[in-house]
Amino acid sequence: MTDSETHVVLTLDEVFSLARNVLLHHGMSEAHAVAIARVITQGQRDECHSHGIYRLLVCVRSLKSGKVDARATPTLRDVAPGVVNVDAHYGFSLLAFETGLPALIKKARGQGIAAMTINRCFHFSALWPEVEMIAAEGLVGLAMNPSHSWVAPAGGTRGVFGTNPLAFAWPRANGLPFVFDFATSAIARGDIELHAREGKAIPSHWALDREGRPTTDARAALEGAMQTFGGHKGSALAAMIELLAGALIGDLTSMESQAFDAGAGASPCHGELVIAIDPHRFGSEGNPASYEAGQARAEALFAAMTGQGARLPSQRRFEARARSERNGVRVPKALYADVLKLLD
Amino acid sequence: MTDSETHVVLTLDEVFSLARNVLLHHGMSEAHAVAIARVITQGQRDECHSHGIYRLLVCVRSLKSGKVDARATPTLRDVAPGVVNVDAHYGFSLLAFETGLPALIKKARGQGIAAMTINRCFHFSALWPEVEMIAAEGLVGLAMNPSHSWVAPAGGTRGVFGTNPLAFAWPRANGLPFVFDFATSAIARGDIELHAREGKAIPSHWALDREGRPTTDARAALEGAMQTFGGHKGSALAAMIELLAGALIGDLTSMESQAFDAGAGASPCHGELVIAIDPHRFGSEGNPASYEAGQARAEALFAAMTGQGARLPSQRRFEARARSERNGVRVPKALYADVLKLLD
Repeated sequence: MTDSETHVVLTLDEVFSLARNVLLHHGMSEAHAVAIARVITQGQRDECHSHGIYRLLVCVRSLKSGKVDARATPTLRDVAPGVVNVDAHYGFSLLAFETGLPALIKKARGQGIAAMTINRCFHFSALWPEVEMIAAEGLVGLAMNPSHSWVAPAGGTRGVFGTNPLAFAWPRANGLPFVFDFATSAIARGDIELHAREGKAIPSHWALDREGRPTTDARAALEGAMQTFGGHKGSALAAMIELLAGALIGDLTSMESQAFDAGAGASPCHGELVIAIDPHRFGSEGNPASYEAGQARAEALFAAMTGQGARLPSQRRFEARARSERNGVRVPKALYADVLKLLD
Repeated sequence: MTDSETHVVLTLDEVFSLARNVLLHHGMSEAHAVAIARVITQGQRDECHSHGIYRLLVCVRSLKSGKVDARATPTLRDVAPGVVNVDAHYGFSLLAFETGLPALIKKARGQGIAAMTINRCFHFSALWPEVEMIAAEGLVGLAMNPSHSWVAPAGGTRGVFGTNPLAFAWPRANGLPFVFDFATSAIARGDIELHAREGKAIPSHWALDREGRPTTDARAALEGAMQTFGGHKGSALAAMIELLAGALIGDLTSMESQAFDAGAGASPCHGELVIAIDPHRFGSEGNPASYEAGQARAEALFAAMTGQGARLPSQRRFEARARSERNGVRVPKALYADVLKLLD
């Protein structure tokens, strides 16, 4: 079959409109629909397919669970000179992030370093759109959150941690930021689900079975626990994220979030920690020359990486972005049909 | 041979005095000697043998390289409401850390989150004593630094990153903190050196040979490049540390630090980034009840880990600490003799 028989091509504006319309159709407020449609468009654009329009199916399922408030208005609170808090009031996280971002940026520029805590949000999105928004302001961004307790600690056998992503962005003067966003689990849970559906074996470092033994059986893995990446080091990072984006900020750990869901199958409800750093307020001399020197140092580091054939994180995503901005995005017809059905 | 034939037993006070005397004997100022003797005593106490009195040999070698200023007085500068800077003036890092710590703590308590940057320091010590000092004040601590460019990026073949440690501590109300301190390299460089000396094979994920191929030959590894832990995720973290504790703070990356050393074999000279967070200034309610709830959440997380047989990071170290505080420390006689020779 030719590509046009299996895929439709949409412009980015068309993706955005489709996403917004689906969300409005399911009772979401305009502000939430726009915030979410924006990152779904970014996911599709960057060919992160699980974060593209596919996510509309997940989103609508979460809305139907009755747990999410699709019209909640996030509220902003100044907590400390270096800390701003956003209460999402059980709405989705993205509008809460957008609500707090200007205050976070202002605090980072004033203090040098600042934090934003988001509480009581339902979360389904990648973190790279958020840290990229921070980098677009010329600041360094860090973000992290718990999820549901599918992941065992190193040396353990049962789920305690979430897939706990960590995202980081460094602003580059002439181009896209240096940015990464990775789960502290060995692999995304969706990848194990996909293997289970297709009856394919998984690598033995991805997960444990119900008895806590490493398994290559994807179905056994889903009944057991996932593993962290990088052994005890990845496990330590996952614990750090539970502490910083859970215990520290007065919100649920992944175990608590899983219990809160009570089998409803909604997106995890929890908090998020975002840190922004203004490089203009750092540097040994605290002057513009020092900032420029830092930027040059970073570029020399990137050149040393790419000069030996290593890819920068997100490089594939940025290549997809350029392609999509030129040609639009390709969406499998079956997925497109499923999404259109959400408008019925 | 019995233990008393092969080892001497020293009290912690004796370790401290020995370390201080050796450092003073080699021209170090009293303030530097005390700061360093303190962490060497802590390393020996916690049975981190490479950070115990063995380090005196490394320290004295660094002093003899002529690069380190053994009497430098660190200077403190207020950079921004959330940022304090310490210039170590090419002395060792620990006195610089101690010099800035009170200001960092004050800023964290005032702002909620604050950073300390240390510039132009020679660094040989673990980071856990530093983040433990922050946790002892009831604050969350994070610390990181570059080193020398021995470690290849994922997908690359040549050294760009340092072993770039990341340390984190969470204060616990009733006991020792939750603390980890790990290198973002797959293994410590010293472990590869040890394997080379003993002619033993190394696991193939530790390092690459000069042609960039994974190797089990420790000698080939030392001529090639080490690998990061955890594939592209560990590599991303290592890059983040170069950016935050190098480019951001106006100090050398690991490549630059290696070039600065110019084969002298001194401890790496670079900067360090330390972040402190006051949990009392976070929490969804910003009140004492919220702080207590966060502490309880953290304890529930730790209990879920240890309850299934997983160890908390640093647990072995804390067990050694209790032993040493009771019984003193055991030092191999050969090492003890080598250290005593430093007093000649």
